[in-house]
Amino acid sequence: MNKLADINNDFLQWYQDIIYAAELVDDSPVRGCYVIRPYGWALWEFIQKYMDERIKQTGHQNAAFPLLIPESFIKREAEHVEGFSPQLAVVTYAGGKELEEKLVVRPTSETTIHHSFARWVKSWRDLPIKINQWASVVRWEMRPRPFLRTSEFFWQEGHTAHETLEQAQEEALLMLNEYVEFIQGQLLIPVIVGKKTESEKFAGADHTFAMEALMPDGRALQMGTSHLLSQNFAKAFNITFQDRQKEIAYPHLTSWGITTRLIGALIMTHGDQKGLILPPAVAPIQVVIIPIYKTSEEMAAVKAQYDFIKTALSGYRIFIDEDDQKTPGAKFYHWELRGVPLRLEIGMRDAQARQVVMVNRLSGNKKNVPFDQLADEVDDQIQLLANDLFVRAQKRQESLLFVGGKLTDFGPIMQDQGGGFITGWCQSPACEQELKKYSAFTRCMLDTHRASSCFHCGKSSVQDVLVAKAY
Amino acid sequence: MNKLADINNDFLQWYQDIIYAAELVDDSPVRGCYVIRPYGWALWEFIQKYMDERIKQTGHQNAAFPLLIPESFIKREAEHVEGFSPQLAVVTYAGGKELEEKLVVRPTSETTIHHSFARWVKSWRDLPIKINQWASVVRWEMRPRPFLRTSEFFWQEGHTAHETLEQAQEEALLMLNEYVEFIQGQLLIPVIVGKKTESEKFAGADHTFAMEALMPDGRALQMGTSHLLSQNFAKAFNITFQDRQKEIAYPHLTSWGITTRLIGALIMTHGDQKGLILPPAVAPIQVVIIPIYKTSEEMAAVKAQYDFIKTALSGYRIFIDEDDQKTPGAKFYHWELRGVPLRLEIGMRDAQARQVVMVNRLSGNKKNVPFDQLADEVDDQIQLLANDLFVRAQKRQESLLFVGGKLTDFGPIMQDQGGGFITGWCQSPACEQELKKYSAFTRCMLDTHRASSCFHCGKSSVQDVLVAKAY
Repeated sequence: MNKLADINNDFLQWYQDIIYAAELVDDSPVRGCYVIRPYGWALWEFIQKYMDERIKQTGHQNAAFPLLIPESFIKREAEHVEGFSPQLAVVTYAGGKELEEKLVVRPTSETTIHHSFARWVKSWRDLPIKINQWASVVRWEMRPRPFLRTSEFFWQEGHTAHETLEQAQEEALLMLNEYVEFIQGQLLIPVIVGKKTESEKFAGADHTFAMEALMPDGRALQMGTSHLLSQNFAKAFNITFQDRQKEIAYPHLTSWGITTRLIGALIMTHGDQKGLILPPAVAPIQVVIIPIYKTSEEMAAVKAQYDFIKTALSGYRIFIDEDDQKTPGAKFYHWELRGVPLRLEIGMRDAQARQVVMVNRLSGNKKNVPFDQLADEVDDQIQLLANDLFVRAQKRQESLLFVGGKLTDFGPIMQDQGGGFITGWCQSPACEQELKKYSAFTRCMLDTHRASSCFHCGKSSVQDVLVAKAY
Repeated sequence: MNKLADINNDFLQWYQDIIYAAELVDDSPVRGCYVIRPYGWALWEFIQKYMDERIKQTGHQNAAFPLLIPESFIKREAEHVEGFSPQLAVVTYAGGKELEEKLVVRPTSETTIHHSFARWVKSWRDLPIKINQWASVVRWEMRPRPFLRTSEFFWQEGHTAHETLEQAQEEALLMLNEYVEFIQGQLLIPVIVGKKTESEKFAGADHTFAMEALMPDGRALQMGTSHLLSQNFAKAFNITFQDRQKEIAYPHLTSWGITTRLIGALIMTHGDQKGLILPPAVAPIQVVIIPIYKTSEEMAAVKAQYDFIKTALSGYRIFIDEDDQKTPGAKFYHWELRGVPLRLEIGMRDAQARQVVMVNRLSGNKKNVPFDQLADEVDDQIQLLANDLFVRAQKRQESLLFVGGKLTDFGPIMQDQGGGFITGWCQSPACEQELKKYSAFTRCMLDTHRASSCFHCGKSSVQDVLVAKAY
């Protein structure tokens, strides 16, 4: 049996333990790259399903762009190359020959997609272009951690081109909002929405909008970003169009993405000492059924009820664990570890009474449920568990959010105990730099003005900023 | 307007014309790699949807394995490295440093997946393992052609491990059959099923089962393969398990895949001089509706019918082309080129008579369809078109299949006019080599014994073989 580290005393070790114990990932022979095992990949497939629907419903189309990008492309946008160079993986020979131009394994696809945009856009009538790609990207990591920071990771990257700045801004905010609704609504993780500072924004963006969540250990995790790109990209890739006044113009571009990091976020946000607790929307198994019997007569009586249960729960992803090598207790442990939201137990006497014992993974509450109420009770209990998960996460996030005054006061606390600090900031990079002394960063600028003065220099604050240590 | 090359006189140019004209692909800055545009990618998404269902229903689970593979892994299975070495793309530095061990961009994932299998398999109870991955792979191509032969292509690769040879063989044949049912049933492409010869089989397989289809120009296209792998893979990656007799044993492995090449196959198989004809199962738009009006009064009368049409055809993927910049004729041309199976035209008088004009993309037949029969008529016509597409493809394939006697007789005809030749073969590689003189290859060995003597040496034939030029 796997023993998980104490979630309260050694959260990071607990995370490391549970992702392997629940068979979400495995190591690979390449440093920083991991195998995502079926139970982990199923989580990503459900995330894909929900987000793909939202992406298509908001008028985007999926496409596929090459994995390999000419090195010169990455260099065309000055900030972009500076941001990504240290993390690139580079193909130098192919087909038995040294390449004339090196090819970079895509760290993100702005450059190659903008090259295509330049071929496709001639007139304002060709705009907007709204494209999305599901893919993996490679950014070499020195300190990898499965799901959270890996040399290869999976994501979707949306890329759009618009006639006007207003339209591009609207698009960037629309997709940010789709992310927020999905992450809060289905992954049940409350997020804090804001704008990245100059030093934290995407390499080559004018503005990066972001969602941040506070993990139980008080460190912030970036949940997704949506960028209003600099016009420099359009200029670097020579994307021009004839506008409504018949003038040559550059389109306004956006890009936005979420990654397999969200799996890490939901593990950390919802898990407990027994293991994962999966949000029902993405749980590969939503209801696990454990038959309990000893004699063959008991077995027959229990198995005779399977058809009824399957029909009653046909709207759910269920699994009947018929493994004869395991005791019921071992099965309880196995599926609790894997975070299945509801467990139904059915033994001989239950079968005779036409009922099951239902156990809620989050609360641990048990109750007898008669067959004729099974479908309704499962609906209710799944809904209850989902609500409770979100509320619990919300309360914890609130308990980890503090008002920060002077950095010299809250810095040591933040460094020591974690937590997110909302404080004033004059918006000077010099003051932002001071945060590093406490291993912290600005996470995002907020639309509020609760604090009047900067956390460091004490000058007038432009707007509030969320400050925290980060994953 | 795009003009397509003559499909009968210059089939390859027609193919090259239509894939760009229908906006399925575009060139990329990297030789041999292509952008798959939304209309092309949608075809792949439907192929994925159908095959993913079949893969899951037959008990396989999706997972994700790293893109990058240590070079030494590829070298562990001797035949494997020999087969793939000339096509590898190699990462030599990453994260700003030269790598200690070079990493190969996966050309296929047997090696890295078998490494994982070795970690996961301990006892016969851990078997079978049945895994699938949807991914792209890189095999450098000197003479690329979109969809058919590209340096990066998309595919699914199934990888399984079994206790016994029989179980592995059963698995390889099961998945071959799933492919055949999908390709014939949904893509409407008739295939010829057989086994690859020693020289044509997968690098590292004991047996490769394959499906071949004859394209209209008489060249064969490999549609998918299913491999019973050599035990050498299990040995090279040290995958062992304790069997039921408590002895250490090596599992029997399979792998199987289909690729974006299937998009090329359906374009070539079904297209005509006007452009694509898409099988309804994978057509991104199954029914296109063209409103016809001049005055605003006419427009209002026509638009008033949209809700009815949308409701009647709610089971279909429909698109109403309301582009005010195009004439109805230009729209007909546009959607015929893109292969939409059915077109509905509705003008003022149709609206008043509560009917539409329905046009079948394959037959070109037009008929008036009253609103109250619309749903049924579309069902019937879609079914009719699908049946006709398959029968047409089947007849053409038959017309391109010949019985081959002596190579010196049929070789020049095959080289000149194409066609598939079913002939006897003694199974010696020397005779197989002779085919190259006519730019042809063995495509697969068949289970029949129609011919008594080998096409080259005249010795006794072991079994029939399909011989053809190939893509």
